[in-house]
Amino acid sequence: MKLLEDRILKDGEILGGDVLKVDSFLNHRLDVPFLCELGREFYRLFSDCKVTKILTVEASGIGISCLTAQYFGVPVVFAKKMRTGNLSPDVYSSPVHSYTRGTTSEIVVAKAYLTASDRVLIIDDFLAKGNALIGLTSLCAQAGAEVVGCGIVIEKAYQGGGDELRKKYRVESLAKIRSMENGTVVFC
Amino acid sequence: MKLLEDRILKDGEILGGDVLKVDSFLNHRLDVPFLCELGREFYRLFSDCKVTKILTVEASGIGISCLTAQYFGVPVVFAKKMRTGNLSPDVYSSPVHSYTRGTTSEIVVAKAYLTASDRVLIIDDFLAKGNALIGLTSLCAQAGAEVVGCGIVIEKAYQGGGDELRKKYRVESLAKIRSMENGTVVFC
Repeated sequence: MKLLEDRILKDGEILGGDVLKVDSFLNHRLDVPFLCELGREFYRLFSDCKVTKILTVEASGIGISCLTAQYFGVPVVFAKKMRTGNLSPDVYSSPVHSYTRGTTSEIVVAKAYLTASDRVLIIDDFLAKGNALIGLTSLCAQAGAEVVGCGIVIEKAYQGGGDELRKKYRVESLAKIRSMENGTVVFC
Repeated sequence: MKLLEDRILKDGEILGGDVLKVDSFLNHRLDVPFLCELGREFYRLFSDCKVTKILTVEASGIGISCLTAQYFGVPVVFAKKMRTGNLSPDVYSSPVHSYTRGTTSEIVVAKAYLTASDRVLIIDDFLAKGNALIGLTSLCAQAGAEVVGCGIVIEKAYQGGGDELRKKYRVESLAKIRSMENGTVVFC
């Protein structure tokens, strides 16, 4: 999506440790009119999928998910991150390792809000190695819900997570990054 | 707002420790078409305030803030919760105590995203003793930004935080709870 690629080139910052910082429009300051455009694009891509629910994970996924969900007219459920420990029997849970932070946390969803009748569109801001997305698909599998697709804002294609996920799911990324070497973002 | 009061009576659960659980539409599963109605109401209430930015705190405030912001055509900035410790010099920060959780955390906003030219509408899901809101107004004061109002989805009026805040700010709550005794929610 050219609108997004242009914005990444304009406002994205490449930090050490292979981090693309897009805090100015996606991860801290949320450019809502711009994110509505991304939401419309997700709707265009997945409008034929009979989506009943959007699933994401707190916190960065919530804004884009809500702004996308209004075009589908469906609710959003966001998985909560908890430190691994005693979990309620009323939740589905899956461990997710964050390479950026070097931590593992449990993502959980109340069983009441994800069911076998759901056709789930998973939305997230970033896809790199795919750990968060794999965790979210695991929550759906535990609930017996069908994952009809995954909508990603920015995919770091060179990290391989997207290719793995595409073996099982339809994954659409609005921007796919081929490389971030020498301080320059190159798209696929 | 009758629509919201009816929804609280229908779907809210009163738990021990004076907790009103509204996970089915506001705090875990987000009923996006319904939250859009709340967003429109916030716009009606604050449309004359020349709002340039909506400020909230992760995670529950993000959804309603984004859905509200689209009517204003302004960005959302969400304060991040961090454990108290070494903070970057590039952020404004304020300690916030959570009575529900019994913990104190630091809420932080990057200085780049909150400035003296901002006219800020603070949005949050709950107002009880008002600690989170006081923290958010402190971030605005540090930035020199003007708080033009606070929009709250559910205020527990009997906890007094709202009255304190109204001495300094315009606070509009879409539902104001007078009491939650004997398992019954009574509105003001």
